[in-house]
Amino acid sequence: MPKISIKGQSMPASPIRKLVPYADAAKQKGVKVYHLNIGQPDIETTSKALNAIRNYDEKVIMYSHSAGNLSYREKLCEYYAKVNINVTPDDIIVTNGASEALLFAFMTIMNPDDEVIIPEPFYANYNGFAITSGVKVKPIFSSIETGFALPPIADFEKAITPNTKAILICNPNNPTGYLYSEAELEVLRELAIKYDLFLIADEVYREFCYDGSKHHSTMHLKGVEDNVILIDSVSKRYSACGLRVGCLVSKNKEVINTAMKFAQARLSPPSIGQVAAEAAIFTDDDYFKDIVKEYEARRNVVVEGINKIDGAYCPCPKGAFYIVAHLPIDDSEKFCKWMLTDFNYEGKTVMMAPASGFYSTKGLGTSEVRISYCLNVNDLTDAMMVLAKALEVYPGRK
Amino acid sequence: MPKISIKGQSMPASPIRKLVPYADAAKQKGVKVYHLNIGQPDIETTSKALNAIRNYDEKVIMYSHSAGNLSYREKLCEYYAKVNINVTPDDIIVTNGASEALLFAFMTIMNPDDEVIIPEPFYANYNGFAITSGVKVKPIFSSIETGFALPPIADFEKAITPNTKAILICNPNNPTGYLYSEAELEVLRELAIKYDLFLIADEVYREFCYDGSKHHSTMHLKGVEDNVILIDSVSKRYSACGLRVGCLVSKNKEVINTAMKFAQARLSPPSIGQVAAEAAIFTDDDYFKDIVKEYEARRNVVVEGINKIDGAYCPCPKGAFYIVAHLPIDDSEKFCKWMLTDFNYEGKTVMMAPASGFYSTKGLGTSEVRISYCLNVNDLTDAMMVLAKALEVYPGRK
Repeated sequence: MPKISIKGQSMPASPIRKLVPYADAAKQKGVKVYHLNIGQPDIETTSKALNAIRNYDEKVIMYSHSAGNLSYREKLCEYYAKVNINVTPDDIIVTNGASEALLFAFMTIMNPDDEVIIPEPFYANYNGFAITSGVKVKPIFSSIETGFALPPIADFEKAITPNTKAILICNPNNPTGYLYSEAELEVLRELAIKYDLFLIADEVYREFCYDGSKHHSTMHLKGVEDNVILIDSVSKRYSACGLRVGCLVSKNKEVINTAMKFAQARLSPPSIGQVAAEAAIFTDDDYFKDIVKEYEARRNVVVEGINKIDGAYCPCPKGAFYIVAHLPIDDSEKFCKWMLTDFNYEGKTVMMAPASGFYSTKGLGTSEVRISYCLNVNDLTDAMMVLAKALEVYPGRK
Repeated sequence: MPKISIKGQSMPASPIRKLVPYADAAKQKGVKVYHLNIGQPDIETTSKALNAIRNYDEKVIMYSHSAGNLSYREKLCEYYAKVNINVTPDDIIVTNGASEALLFAFMTIMNPDDEVIIPEPFYANYNGFAITSGVKVKPIFSSIETGFALPPIADFEKAITPNTKAILICNPNNPTGYLYSEAELEVLRELAIKYDLFLIADEVYREFCYDGSKHHSTMHLKGVEDNVILIDSVSKRYSACGLRVGCLVSKNKEVINTAMKFAQARLSPPSIGQVAAEAAIFTDDDYFKDIVKEYEARRNVVVEGINKIDGAYCPCPKGAFYIVAHLPIDDSEKFCKWMLTDFNYEGKTVMMAPASGFYSTKGLGTSEVRISYCLNVNDLTDAMMVLAKALEVYPGRK
């Protein structure tokens, strides 16, 4: 039998997927599993998108332009103008979710063995896109003690080599929920100029900012217009993950022209998804206000719940819908598995993602879990109670 | 400004896209352009798919399973059983079109600098997926004189090196329309066994077989179940290119498990597209009968039209909706451009794809064009007349 590739062999299995069979088995035994492991919002998709799908009246579902429908890109520019990002349709390539936008960005700017610096913990699938494109991830440590703030500039400079081509941030951050300040973005701007680096910014959680705080985009930075590549998606914004509509945005013409060749090779992004995403642009501001209020309440339940547990703590992040919590445990992979295989409280348990899967450096995150707060406040309150009970009896408690 | 990658620089521009600005300019001058350059069928999408979209009644458009919805994969198995391909849902990964399935296949089985043998002329975007995955394409020549039949076994054996990992065919073929015989597939089977190679078969035109001929799938071959990777898509089958729903199918568990990791990294294929594709499985057989009859008539118009032109000829292929024609011209790129910039007959002209873009070997295909017959019989008849008139006056005529 012919052999599979080294790339294939080195692709990491998702840290969450490994737990799925255990969650399934728990459910089959009648245990209720609170899913704090996934980033699939329970919020209803904006009605504008749903109505556009139901009113779809084309007779032939054709390929769109490889960069996405011009009408959609025009509407996207109106959306971006509202958040003070000034772009034209030619600066945008519509993609199969942010995932494809990231892959195009990596392929466009990096050769095999080039390096991208990413503050860790980071979204685990960045590893997959790095392996796919042959790129090396150089993690730099961001600490739960600082609330996962941007690491000091000296740490970036220590990590930079002649092969470093880019810095990648996720803002607001998955998995930490951290929202980067304007001052932190300025640090990245200086690094980009000094070392001639690309800045890739995954801003798919832009709308999810709490406590009245404001999102600052890398696209707002002056003098690095040719360095910045914005990665975006409608998945979280409109609770429309299944549309698979994201985009890559850059003022750098060479980046766009090159990414377009990768886009042309795969013909087009999904046509129905684009029709829905275009309609979604007209979503009322109230939709977001309600969602932000709801997620703020959810975050508070989780953050308060964690910090009430003896030996556990987490920062109170200002964005996205995740937190990374330190728990008094020996090993987060063991603990998350144990929660599904060996524990339930009154027939209920909690599924979380071991944070070790979000660190590139071996041995980090073993006492941390990522909690996604995509459940309603009542369920989250109950889940936090169940987690507290679990930590009272977990054999590997520290 | 930081530099883009070598991969990015080596990505080929599409041979057709280069002509688009000239076609646009011709249209602005009021010239009617017959588009014989694209594989976007004009046939109406199956009503089953369109109705499923209009009846979509979910409240949250969620991610699907990374391998695609189980219900869709189950229905796909029923579809495959009808064409004598016996697979289970676990053998299938639903992808963003056949494009992503090809990329997953390349990534899964080949390391950078590994080689894939492809009979040329071949679908130009295979080059893009090869560059993306760092794989080398080794073309072997198939000739218009034999109707673009499979090259002799000796030509394959001459091309095989220790780095050869796979043979890729498209059956029925884009761009040639050639339908491989059972005997030709047996040759590939023997090569796969003898040299321990993967056989990748792009069979997206399976339904488009003419003159009562039967499609033979690589999935029918005995004893090479672990070698075969089927690439498929609903784009052409149901005239639903914009859904972006394809799949990768293999009985080789290692291939599926590895491709799944690439699939997980990009989360999921489009959810609405899958709902539409699942409904499309119930399309009446009459839908295909009518389409095959229609395309057969179109093919006849084009083949007769070409062979009536002095100095031009083409085979009469039995599948897909393309032909490659030899024309009495100096250079197909020049000719195709000239048709748009310098020629019209009674205000009409024809846009075709220079076949040179479908050959990997430099210098081949310069007197050939690919003609796609996705227009109605009347338009095609007129287009053939216009092409004949053009060849009467083309300054580079040979």
